Amino acid sequence: MNDTPRRLAIGLEYDGSGFRGWQQQKDGRTIQPLVEQALAKVANHPVQVTCAGRTDAGVHATCQIVHFDTTAQRPLHAWLLGGNSHLTPEISLQWVRPVAPDFHARFSARWRRYRYIFLNRLARPAILRRRVTWYYRPLAAEPMHEAAQHLLGEHDFSSFRALGCQARHPIREVQSVSVTRDGDFIYLDIRANAFLHHMVRNIAGALMCVGRGERPSDWLAELREARDRSQGGVTAPPDGLYLVQVGYDAQFDLHPEAVIPRYGFV
Amino acid sequence: MNDTPRRLAIGLEYDGSGFRGWQQQKDGRTIQPLVEQALAKVANHPVQVTCAGRTDAGVHATCQIVHFDTTAQRPLHAWLLGGNSHLTPEISLQWVRPVAPDFHARFSARWRRYRYIFLNRLARPAILRRRVTWYYRPLAAEPMHEAAQHLLGEHDFSSFRALGCQARHPIREVQSVSVTRDGDFIYLDIRANAFLHHMVRNIAGALMCVGRGERPSDWLAELREARDRSQGGVTAPPDGLYLVQVGYDAQFDLHPEAVIPRYGFV
Repeated sequence: MNDTPRRLAIGLEYDGSGFRGWQQQKDGRTIQPLVEQALAKVANHPVQVTCAGRTDAGVHATCQIVHFDTTAQRPLHAWLLGGNSHLTPEISLQWVRPVAPDFHARFSARWRRYRYIFLNRLARPAILRRRVTWYYRPLAAEPMHEAAQHLLGEHDFSSFRALGCQARHPIREVQSVSVTRDGDFIYLDIRANAFLHHMVRNIAGALMCVGRGERPSDWLAELREARDRSQGGVTAPPDGLYLVQVGYDAQFDLHPEAVIPRYGFV
Repeated sequence: MNDTPRRLAIGLEYDGSGFRGWQQQKDGRTIQPLVEQALAKVANHPVQVTCAGRTDAGVHATCQIVHFDTTAQRPLHAWLLGGNSHLTPEISLQWVRPVAPDFHARFSARWRRYRYIFLNRLARPAILRRRVTWYYRPLAAEPMHEAAQHLLGEHDFSSFRALGCQARHPIREVQSVSVTRDGDFIYLDIRANAFLHHMVRNIAGALMCVGRGERPSDWLAELREARDRSQGGVTAPPDGLYLVQVGYDAQFDLHPEAVIPRYGFV
């Protein structure tokens, strides 16, 4: 047996609807401790995990990335199948890969990609409840897309930053953003180097004002320039939000594929 | 006020995973009484509903059809919005339309269409759990499709009939059937004049044997000819099964659109 710890990375899928978010808290059910407990059972020693992006209450992930260290020698599939057998059905390990000892799920990340899904139809969803954000009044996707283009590039995103946000500064770089409609579904896809607290949901909320025709597309530029959260409108619900990909520094040779959910009714 | 009762038809979506099926039972939570209670609150009188196909425990519907009679005069959108406001989030009225007094959700139906969804990948689903049937060993969709073609036409389907099935006879006409793969998802689509108890799930179970390579495609013909449930293999789980469309006799001018779920990860 070799007791040198090795570092493993995991691709994690979860349905966030039954959780108070990723991070362990005094009260409420969170994802992190459940993942740690499941891995500890496979490792036969306590395990601490670190994730790429600490998702909020109700937010989903198709490909959250976490790393942990272990002295246990197990085949990769044993971590996967064993871990999943000890986890609640709402959380599932998708893959496990060895990484360099200096890889860090959060600090080695160069960008994150989120998808926000609206279901835009009169009747509320039953099968996809808590997996999409239902909105019954018509939303026009094209003006939403135009509006979103004002967010591209490096900006001060204070207007889209939650009051409690603990980031050191409000500057972020939005690297791509689009809004597309497919039947009754509207997809907001956004990639940035990093995100402020509630940033995607605050952007989604502002874009809804544009989609309803209450504001012109250019309002997003105005709002961004205001650097003032109080002008930004509502925070969209967490139901439709998914962390779908994390991009890492090339030196780590970890290139998690995008796992971008799409739903539809033929 | 006009007290002549009128008959209304409803398109109903539900997530069947938390129910013991459609039909009211002595024990267990079922869908029918919840729909009746919600409509009764809107109607302000007791309501009885009749459905096109009584789905089993765990089975979903994107477009179950029900009818009911009422003396209450309400705009159609009041039935829709009011009904939904009184229903659990797992059930949702999608539309409400007036129909002729001799329309019958079950007896006027000429055919039903079901979709059965497999998720065929190593790691179990978290977000789509109980909405798809997860199978971790590879399934070959093409031989499954070939095998399914042996079911086309009018046949004695005793080999795919649950022991407790209460139908008068085992003859059914399969009007179309296909198996297709899209990424990790495999879709079994089947339309028949009517279905025996567990018929789609027993067909799905037999097709899994073919998809795993344990049986050749022609086995489905053999099995069908055997008219013997004991040769038919396992009943596939209800998780992946959806009632997606019902076709009615042309005289009723009710043509519910197919609402066929598709899931995917880009």
